[in-house]
Parts: sequence; structure tokens; C-alpha cells
Amino acid sequence: VNFGILGSGIVGRTLGGKLAELGHQVMIGTRDVSETLARTQPEGYGGPPFGVWQQQHPRVKLGTFADAAAHGEIVVNATAGMGSLEALEMAGRAHLAGKILMDIANPLDSSRGMPPTLSVANADSLGEQIQRAFPETRVVKTLNTVTASLMINPSLLSGEHSVFVSGDDAEAKAMVTQILKDWFGWPSVIDLGDITSARGTEMVMALWLRLFRALQTPLFNYRIVRRAE
Amino acid sequence: VNFGILGSGIVGRTLGGKLAELGHQVMIGTRDVSETLARTQPEGYGGPPFGVWQQQHPRVKLGTFADAAAHGEIVVNATAGMGSLEALEMAGRAHLAGKILMDIANPLDSSRGMPPTLSVANADSLGEQIQRAFPETRVVKTLNTVTASLMINPSLLSGEHSVFVSGDDAEAKAMVTQILKDWFGWPSVIDLGDITSARGTEMVMALWLRLFRALQTPLFNYRIVRRAE
Repeated sequence: VNFGILGSGIVGRTLGGKLAELGHQVMIGTRDVSETLARTQPEGYGGPPFGVWQQQHPRVKLGTFADAAAHGEIVVNATAGMGSLEALEMAGRAHLAGKILMDIANPLDSSRGMPPTLSVANADSLGEQIQRAFPETRVVKTLNTVTASLMINPSLLSGEHSVFVSGDDAEAKAMVTQILKDWFGWPSVIDLGDITSARGTEMVMALWLRLFRALQTPLFNYRIVRRAE
Repeated sequence: VNFGILGSGIVGRTLGGKLAELGHQVMIGTRDVSETLARTQPEGYGGPPFGVWQQQHPRVKLGTFADAAAHGEIVVNATAGMGSLEALEMAGRAHLAGKILMDIANPLDSSRGMPPTLSVANADSLGEQIQRAFPETRVVKTLNTVTASLMINPSLLSGEHSVFVSGDDAEAKAMVTQILKDWFGWPSVIDLGDITSARGTEMVMALWLRLFRALQTPLFNYRIVRRAE
């Protein structure tokens, strides 16, 4: 499958690297290719500059947001949430029409201090904003509740734990669920309902950020425990 | 210990009944005692009218919000979240000063349809609003992430799962943690930090409400899964 991944940060790299390793054709999209390649500073989460990373992952191509969206049969939104709508506009409506968009972004807003708040929450969500702005695209909100390394390697944690899918298109959710289970190894993928349920997984960031601080590691996740048999 | 429990609904009854069973002196507080006792309709979640419930729990007293707050060495806010600040004003500042207030309410707002949104979220929370309005009271947000029956009986679910405490007063959190562990049987109580972390547990309601719909039962909770050893 051809994947277009919007965003060259830790999430885009992690997913892009894994999908390429699985044999898929991956292009990462960025706002300005030459600027991204010219970077010499470590990336925000301590990873190498993109050019160095790409030398280690030569099968992953780099292009503009529009190049990557055109390339992808499935497109992944791995941009920073507050910039996602703009990045998707740059990717181009026509390049996204009819396609599955895995939306992994959280609309984190650090302008009011740390931990961040959300720039949209409660009666709306970024997932819904994207679905409204791109009605021909099949948006599936997923993976936004876990740190990047867990997204593709859930066995870093012991026992069963879950990720979620939210979206209006049942077939798109089924496809994404299969990717999560069969390719990334997720033992449990819970369908939360339509795209409005993205509010649930985006708003859980408020808990995640406090747990991150309390546990002093991003390597944790939620297991949904049900009634004793 | 004398407990004053504000709110005569399912949460107040569940906690009040359990604490009385454990031998504590419990008074439930309500807005209008004679109105509450005159009710003949089932309570919102299908429980009996309060008068019938009280006949089954004769050790639990009923009084006004002010009576219950005055009675309690520890006070529990089990009112509906959108009415909590008003109920606490009626309980009386002087009756709450210096005391631990276990705040279990979620600011659920059903006026925009179902599932409810929150009347305060993201850059503030009900827990913080209460702490600001009653600076002499030691507010501990807790138990608002689980359905009432689980609050006092976590073993209804298999294996370890967690509740949280948020608050500015370390001693108050330690006391509440002891109540949760020793009296209610919680195997895991996670300290999320100061009262601003109440945003985390209140906002997780957005996920809880979708899980409730997806799982078709309120009998579930979160286990925080950490790194494999």
C-alpha cells in the first residue's frame, strides 16, 4: 500500500519507518522540503535532524504535503494538531478525496503554559473539524492516546491495553483496525463510534499529561477493565 | 468519623450507605428535606424514592446541605456538577472551612444533547472552581471516573484498576487515599498532582461516555498499564 504521511516529526517518522519496514511505499510530507532537509538541530523530542534520520531510512521518501497526499492511497495526519487544518489544505482537497485519513494529531496548545490545553475540545474536536473541512475524506481518529513508540510496538507494555478508532465510515474504520492489529500488533482496538467520539480520545490528553508527569514516563497506556466473569 | 454527604442521588446514597455500614455517622444533605422525603417517583437512575431508600438504611440521617456539612468532619460533594457550587454555598462556608471535601461531581451538561458535554473544561475544572470558591476547604477530586457501584466495590471488575486523587493539600490526599484503599478496597490510587489535575479526570468523562455506549455497561474502568519488566 502507498502511504502518505503528513508531518516529519517523531510520530510521522515512527509510523513511516515501520510501514516502510513492512514493505509499503512511504512518502513523508512536510511544508518545505529543502528547509526540512537543511535542518541541523535535533528534532523536538530529541531525535536527529530529518536528513540524518532519512539516511537511516532510505526507503522513506520526502516530499511536500501535496506530494505525500498524492502519493498515499492511505494518508496519515501526523502534524501538530494546531497546524493540521492548514497542512491538510496544503495537501490539497483533491489529493485527499475518497481516501482514508488516519488522524493521529492532538490539538495541543502550549500558549497558556504547561501542561498544554486543547485548542478545541468538549463540544467539538480536531477530528470533527477535519471531517467537516474534508467531507469527501474518510477520517478515522486513532492512536492519538499513546506515545509514538507504542503506536507501532504495543508489546513495550505488559498485557492487554487498547487503542481506539472513531469515524463515520465503517469500512474505513475496519481497514484501520486491521492495520493496527495485523501490522502494528495491537491486541485490542475499541470502536468508539462516529467521528464525534474523537472528543473522547482527544480530551483524554488532559489525563495523559498528568499521568505522564506522575509516572515520569510516556510509556503507559489504558487497559479497559470490564466486569469480572 | 462523621461524614456529611451533599446530594441524595445514586452517588450520595452509595457512599453514604457504605460508610454507615462501616460504622461511621453519616448525614446526607439535600436542598429541601421535606421535598426529598415527599418524593414518590423512582430516582433518576432507577433507584427507589429517597424515603424508601432511607427505610432500608435507617442509620443514615437526612438533613439540609448546611446540616450535613456541619455534621461532617469529612464532607463529600455528590451533587450534580452543574449545581455543585450553589449546593456548597448553601452548605455554608463556615461549615466547610478546614475540612476535607471529597469532590466526586462531574460538570455534565446535557443541554446540548447526548452524550453530555462539560460545563467547564480544558483550562479550568469544577474541582478548581470549588477550591477557588472555598479556599479554606481542602478539596480532593476523586472517584469521578467510575460509576457509583464501583466506587465502593472495585472488585466488581477483574484485576487491578485505578482511581485518582487531585488536590493541593498533601495530607488531605493521603487521608482520602487511605479511605479509598482501606475502606472501599481500591488496589490502586494514583496521585495526579494539584487540583488543576482535576481537569484530567473530569475530561476523561468524554471518553467514558463513549465507552459506556460502546460497551453497553457502566461497569468498566481504566487500568494504567506500564512498561514490561
